[in-house]
Amino acid sequence: MRLSRSFLPTLKENPTEAQITSHRLMLRAGLIRQTAAGIYAWLPAGLRVLRNIANIVRHEQDAIGAQEMLMPTIQSADLWKRSGRYDAYGPEMLRIRDRHERDMLFGPTNEEMITDLFGQVVKSYKELPQVLYHIQWKFRDEVRPRFGVMRGREFYMKDAYSFDMDYASAVDTYRRMMLAYLRTFQRLGVRAIPMLADTGPIGGELSHEFLILAPTGESGVFFDSALEEQDWLAEDVDITDRQSLEKFFTRMTSFYAATDEKHDEAAWAQVPAGRRREGRGIEVGHIFHFGRKYTESMDIAISGPDGAPLYPEMGSYGIGVSRLVAAIIEASHDENGIIWPESVAPFKAAIINLKSGDAVCDGICEKLYAAAPDLLLYDDRSERAGAKFADADLMGHPWQLIVGPRGAKEGKVEIKNRRTGERTEDTVEGALALVLKNHG
Amino acid sequence: MRLSRSFLPTLKENPTEAQITSHRLMLRAGLIRQTAAGIYAWLPAGLRVLRNIANIVRHEQDAIGAQEMLMPTIQSADLWKRSGRYDAYGPEMLRIRDRHERDMLFGPTNEEMITDLFGQVVKSYKELPQVLYHIQWKFRDEVRPRFGVMRGREFYMKDAYSFDMDYASAVDTYRRMMLAYLRTFQRLGVRAIPMLADTGPIGGELSHEFLILAPTGESGVFFDSALEEQDWLAEDVDITDRQSLEKFFTRMTSFYAATDEKHDEAAWAQVPAGRRREGRGIEVGHIFHFGRKYTESMDIAISGPDGAPLYPEMGSYGIGVSRLVAAIIEASHDENGIIWPESVAPFKAAIINLKSGDAVCDGICEKLYAAAPDLLLYDDRSERAGAKFADADLMGHPWQLIVGPRGAKEGKVEIKNRRTGERTEDTVEGALALVLKNHG
Repeated sequence: MRLSRSFLPTLKENPTEAQITSHRLMLRAGLIRQTAAGIYAWLPAGLRVLRNIANIVRHEQDAIGAQEMLMPTIQSADLWKRSGRYDAYGPEMLRIRDRHERDMLFGPTNEEMITDLFGQVVKSYKELPQVLYHIQWKFRDEVRPRFGVMRGREFYMKDAYSFDMDYASAVDTYRRMMLAYLRTFQRLGVRAIPMLADTGPIGGELSHEFLILAPTGESGVFFDSALEEQDWLAEDVDITDRQSLEKFFTRMTSFYAATDEKHDEAAWAQVPAGRRREGRGIEVGHIFHFGRKYTESMDIAISGPDGAPLYPEMGSYGIGVSRLVAAIIEASHDENGIIWPESVAPFKAAIINLKSGDAVCDGICEKLYAAAPDLLLYDDRSERAGAKFADADLMGHPWQLIVGPRGAKEGKVEIKNRRTGERTEDTVEGALALVLKNHG
Repeated sequence: MRLSRSFLPTLKENPTEAQITSHRLMLRAGLIRQTAAGIYAWLPAGLRVLRNIANIVRHEQDAIGAQEMLMPTIQSADLWKRSGRYDAYGPEMLRIRDRHERDMLFGPTNEEMITDLFGQVVKSYKELPQVLYHIQWKFRDEVRPRFGVMRGREFYMKDAYSFDMDYASAVDTYRRMMLAYLRTFQRLGVRAIPMLADTGPIGGELSHEFLILAPTGESGVFFDSALEEQDWLAEDVDITDRQSLEKFFTRMTSFYAATDEKHDEAAWAQVPAGRRREGRGIEVGHIFHFGRKYTESMDIAISGPDGAPLYPEMGSYGIGVSRLVAAIIEASHDENGIIWPESVAPFKAAIINLKSGDAVCDGICEKLYAAAPDLLLYDDRSERAGAKFADADLMGHPWQLIVGPRGAKEGKVEIKNRRTGERTEDTVEGALALVLKNHG
């Protein structure tokens, strides 16, 4: 994309309405603009990050056999009356009356709808397990929306739902999802620590939440640093084998990790002193097993092995996709701006032309840009160098390809790594090979 | 995907609630399920079609320099009061009151929001033209939702908005968009005929709608068959050159095409008799130029060449993505089911195992499936052959790869083309090369 013609407005000043770093940086880097309290438009660069995150989430859900579908945003109140949650949910639910005076709502979650659809489609225990997910906009009418997309009202979320014939099988599914989550966060370039959680209003027996470490996190966290050092992508788990899943899960849960609510001083004392980490965390995912709560309350039974009605065991599994954009920034920035992990960055690199209008500089910049116009942001504006550097740092591209008259004469490009600040020099081909190395 | 474990429920019987072919076939082929009046969940196969269509739309928008962003579904009523449309819009607008008693609405379209965002970001005529689009769920509270997703309430739409400094430049943008639309529909495997249209409640001076020919279409259409024979993908247009755009547009509009509302018998008589086509059409796209209607009413001015305030010329450009799923089916089916164009099909081919459990048949099926598990649907159910053939025809995969004991012994696969019914035989490698030929 050429910056001179793009809808990527950076701001030099800190917007006064933003109280936390990620909100400030998302506004300043031109990722979002507020359109109503707690509701945001995603500008082109912001949408790219959102989509990169969603694609990684999707890939890891698919890898454990979850099937993607898409449920609507507007739901009938009748569905929620069947489960008994319509009255219980409170004012966070955006209640709507349509032109025929029917009670509707903007879905904050989809347990009722998926359970109803499951009941229409699945007839026998032989079709289990089923894991279904969607990535869809949801709405929670927060009384005080704040911190940008961190606590917005309209938010983008992946929610998965599982149906198993018995508890043991549901536990297998839960463990597969745990592995998928650990891999998802690792691929996103952040560490999210899984913590044993209370099951809260959804109810249930087995639950973990995933927290990204950041000083602005809403919860205090205590964990064994060994958790940060695991390579879940390399973890050898046969997801079709119960023992293999159990072995993985036992090892993973053997490392101490707890939020302040669940913190246990006696267990904490058992963690080797050098591995004790304390900090704050932002919740970006939550997985629950809740058994037959919805299948029973909504009377969704299928045919069991003995022919008798069987109420499947369920779980639900959320990842806050739009919230992750903010959480990753909270965890990965410096005083100059965002530092995007390569996997989610809106652009792999900025091309910074230090002398726009100079034939040699322009030629090298165009050559770089032509190699991957969709992955590179060419700063072709007639701004001074300082402004271009500042914007590139602010927007957080993993690399900067700096083209000035001196190097250009020799066909050389200066390459800056945003995270380390390290600078090297290379040919056009060498520079492109480096910044596009993770791209086919 | 393995059919035995997938959430792809086919129905043998015609659902009584469905009045038109596409609605019946979408339910029977397991693409959608209704969750409330005029509101649908997209099951995995349906979502794949929706996404394939959206990706083609996106690609052709990007090709003319439009920038993708994403606006929220919920809008503030204040925005609509500024343009004066809040009161004018009528009961199709889903009006919502949030917990603080603020008037909100579920966006049926985004002229106001994009104009406001544009005004926040763009300051000078030098940054024009700007073309911005998003693909987002919208809501129109139809009094009688019917015909499935053809006239649903919650629907998926691409809407683009353009900003130009003067009328001549706005006409260039309009013509670029016309070309993008013609290419989009051609790539979708259908012909959509562009018709001069009334500008309707949005207002404006230049407008075309795009209709897919189908007997169930809501409008009568009259057109020159030469329009169907153009290859817009091969059309040589330099989209940066005004004269080239004009030449293309003049040629395109030289062919007669009109809906019954605009039909002109005198002009029709000039079309060579052998090229006169009459039929019915389903509207799937609509492009408008409407000038300064919103920039003036909302007072969004930028700095013009002479330093004076300039109110940009606007256009808007819609494609009904969810409606297209139904429209394509209306245009492409037979008595046995859907016939998907290859570019939008949920799966490239079904693998039909005529003897599940037979080691040789299973082996060949697994080999086929392993080549592209994400693009192929393996019917591994223990159903009789007739049921598998019927479901494959119903679901409309472009190809069927049929593996029976006799051919399997010789390593052969029977290949059926869904559209022509033609059957050939080939090796596993030959069959895969054929059905995956349009895939990298």
